Amino acid sequence: MIPTLEWLPTGVNFLDQTKLPLEETYVLATDYIQVATVIRDMIVRGAPAIGVSAAMGVAIGILRSGATSFDQLDVEVAEICSHLAGTRPTAVNLFWGIGKIRDLYEQRKAAGDSIAAIKDAVVAEACLMYDEDIAACKQMGKNGAELLPQKGTVLTHCNAGALATCGYGSALGVIRAAIEAGHEIDVFADETRPFLQGARLTAWELMKDNIPTTVLCDNMAAHLMGKGRIQAVIVGADRIAANGDTANKIGTYGVSILAKEHGIPFYVAAPWSTIDQATATGDGIPIEQRSALEVTHSNGKQMTPHGVAIENPAFDVTPAKYITAIITERGVLRAPFSESIKAMGEMPEPARLRAVTV
Amino acid sequence: MIPTLEWLPTGVNFLDQTKLPLEETYVLATDYIQVATVIRDMIVRGAPAIGVSAAMGVAIGILRSGATSFDQLDVEVAEICSHLAGTRPTAVNLFWGIGKIRDLYEQRKAAGDSIAAIKDAVVAEACLMYDEDIAACKQMGKNGAELLPQKGTVLTHCNAGALATCGYGSALGVIRAAIEAGHEIDVFADETRPFLQGARLTAWELMKDNIPTTVLCDNMAAHLMGKGRIQAVIVGADRIAANGDTANKIGTYGVSILAKEHGIPFYVAAPWSTIDQATATGDGIPIEQRSALEVTHSNGKQMTPHGVAIENPAFDVTPAKYITAIITERGVLRAPFSESIKAMGEMPEPARLRAVTV
Repeated sequence: MIPTLEWLPTGVNFLDQTKLPLEETYVLATDYIQVATVIRDMIVRGAPAIGVSAAMGVAIGILRSGATSFDQLDVEVAEICSHLAGTRPTAVNLFWGIGKIRDLYEQRKAAGDSIAAIKDAVVAEACLMYDEDIAACKQMGKNGAELLPQKGTVLTHCNAGALATCGYGSALGVIRAAIEAGHEIDVFADETRPFLQGARLTAWELMKDNIPTTVLCDNMAAHLMGKGRIQAVIVGADRIAANGDTANKIGTYGVSILAKEHGIPFYVAAPWSTIDQATATGDGIPIEQRSALEVTHSNGKQMTPHGVAIENPAFDVTPAKYITAIITERGVLRAPFSESIKAMGEMPEPARLRAVTV
Repeated sequence: MIPTLEWLPTGVNFLDQTKLPLEETYVLATDYIQVATVIRDMIVRGAPAIGVSAAMGVAIGILRSGATSFDQLDVEVAEICSHLAGTRPTAVNLFWGIGKIRDLYEQRKAAGDSIAAIKDAVVAEACLMYDEDIAACKQMGKNGAELLPQKGTVLTHCNAGALATCGYGSALGVIRAAIEAGHEIDVFADETRPFLQGARLTAWELMKDNIPTTVLCDNMAAHLMGKGRIQAVIVGADRIAANGDTANKIGTYGVSILAKEHGIPFYVAAPWSTIDQATATGDGIPIEQRSALEVTHSNGKQMTPHGVAIENPAFDVTPAKYITAIITERGVLRAPFSESIKAMGEMPEPARLRAVTV
C-alpha cells in the first residue's frame, strides 16, 4: 500500500511527491494553511488525492478552531474554504472535496449539533471520503480491466496512480486490475514535462508492483505508435465537462490525437467526483498556468537563455470526440457522452462504502 | 554571425553546444579523432553542420598524415573515413561530407597529384563546402520566406538554425528571411527533450537576433494549436528519402500529425545534401538510439527510479503525406515528392558558389 496521504491524530501526513523517486520522505500538515501549501507545491497532486486532501484540510481547519460560537466559526470556515480553493483551479475534485465538508458543516449546524459534535463529524466524513476513494479506484479497475488488451503495451501520461488518489489509482488502477485478471501488460510512461510525474511517480509506483515499465520522453510516443508498439492509451482526468471534454495534464490532448491517427483506443479513468456537470464543455474549464521556473530550470540549473518567454499551462482539454470511453466507478461511459453522463448522473447515487460512524 | 564551426590553421574550432546557452566556450579539434568525438558528443550537431564537420574531419586527417606513399595514405584515409562514419548514423549529410572529400582524394590521386597538392585540395574543398552551406541556407530562406505567414506564430522543433549549419540556418534561415522580407513572426520553440536543443540553442540564437521567442515543453504544442496560436510549423531534416519521408529529431513526427489535425501547414527546410535518393522510403533510414542517461539524468541528478527501462530514439520519420512542402536551396518541393525530388535531382547541378581555388 502506497501511503499517499493519511489522517493521523497529529495532522495529515503526506508522502512528499516532489522528492520521489529517490527519497521517500513525509510532510505532516498540522493545520489547513499547511495542507493548502502541500497542495499548491504539489507535494500531493492528482485530482482525486487533491479532493480528499482538501476535505481533510477543511476538517483539520474546523477541528483546530478555537471558536466558541457559530458566528466565529462561520467566519473561520469561510476563510478555510476560500484559502484551500485558491490553491489549484483546474481539478474539480478540489472544490468537490471542500464542498462536501462545508455542506456537512452547514447541515449539522442547521440540525442543532454542538461545535464539538460537528468537529467529530467532519473528521469522520473526510476519513470516509478517503476510504471511498480507494473503493472507487478498485471499482474503476473492475469496470475497465476488460477494455485493455489481453497482451500488449499501454501508454499512460502523467501519474493517475496510487499517488494521484488515496491508493490503487484511476488509470493505473485499471492497469493493475487488468493484470490481476491475467492480462499481460507492459506500461509505457510518458515522462510528462515539466514536472516529470511519469518519469518520477508512475515509474516508481509501477516498479514497486513489479509491473514492467518503460519511461519515454513525451515526444517519443508518436514514433512508438507508428511502430505498432502501443495497443491502448489510458489516462486520468482533472475535470470532465458535461459533454465529456476532459481536462488532464498538459500533453494529454496531443496524445489523444496521436492515438486517433494510429487507430489506438484512448481511455480516461476517473472517479465520478471528477465529472463536473455544471460545466457544459471544456471551454469552461479554467487552465492553471504555473511558474516559468518549472520549464526554465532543472535541478536548480537554468537551461534556457536569460529572459526568454515561457509557456507553462499545467493542463489541456481533450475534446470528447477523441475519447473512446470514460471509466468511472459507476460504470463505463461511451459517446455521446453528454447523454451517457446525464443518464448516469440521474441514476440513484450508489450506497456509500460504510455508514457515517458519528 | 554565430561561429558554429570554423577552419583555423590550428584545427577545426567548434562552439560547444553542450554548454549553451549560459556558457560560450569553444573546443579546438586538432585531428580527425577529436572531430569525431565532437560530432559523437554533440558539441556540434545538426545535419548540415555535421556534414561539413565530417568533411573538415577527413581533410584534417589527410592534412595531418605523415604518410609518404599512397599505399600508406590509402590505409589512413580508409581509417579516417570509417572512424568518422561511425559517429552518428541518421544524418545522411555525415556520409555525404565524408564522401565528398574521399572522392576528391581519389580523383586527385588518379590525376597524378602529389600528396602535398592533395592536402591543399582537400582543405580547400572542405572550406568551400562551408561557404556553400551558408549560401544554401540563404537561398533556402529566399525560397521559403513567402510560405510563412505575413503575421503570425511559427512553431519549430529542435534546432535547425545557425547552430545546426555553418550559419543562418535551414528552418530558422527561412524564418530569418521572412522577417528580413517584412513578415512579423513570433517563434514558438519546442524545448525538445531530452537534449533540449530548442530550449537551449534555438532560443539562444533567436534571442541574439532579437526575434520574439517563446519556449514550451514538447507536450504543449497541441494545446497551443488548439487555441489557434500557431499558424505554421517549420523544421529541419537529418535525412529525406526519395519519396519525401523525412527523418528529423525525435518528436517531429508527432508535431506533423498535430499540424495536420489542426489544418496548419508543416514545412521541412533542408539543403539538397540531406536528400538521400538511394534510400527509397523512411523505412530504410537507420534511427540512432542514444544513451538512457540523457533521459534518466538532468544536470547530474537521477530523475527516474533505479533500473527502470528507457526508450531514447534520437530521431523519427515523418511520412511524406504529412509534409506540406520541402524547401531546399534548389527550390520548393511539393507532393508527390517521389516525382518532384526525382525531377529536381535530374536537373543540371547548379554552379558552385566559387571555383575551387587550388
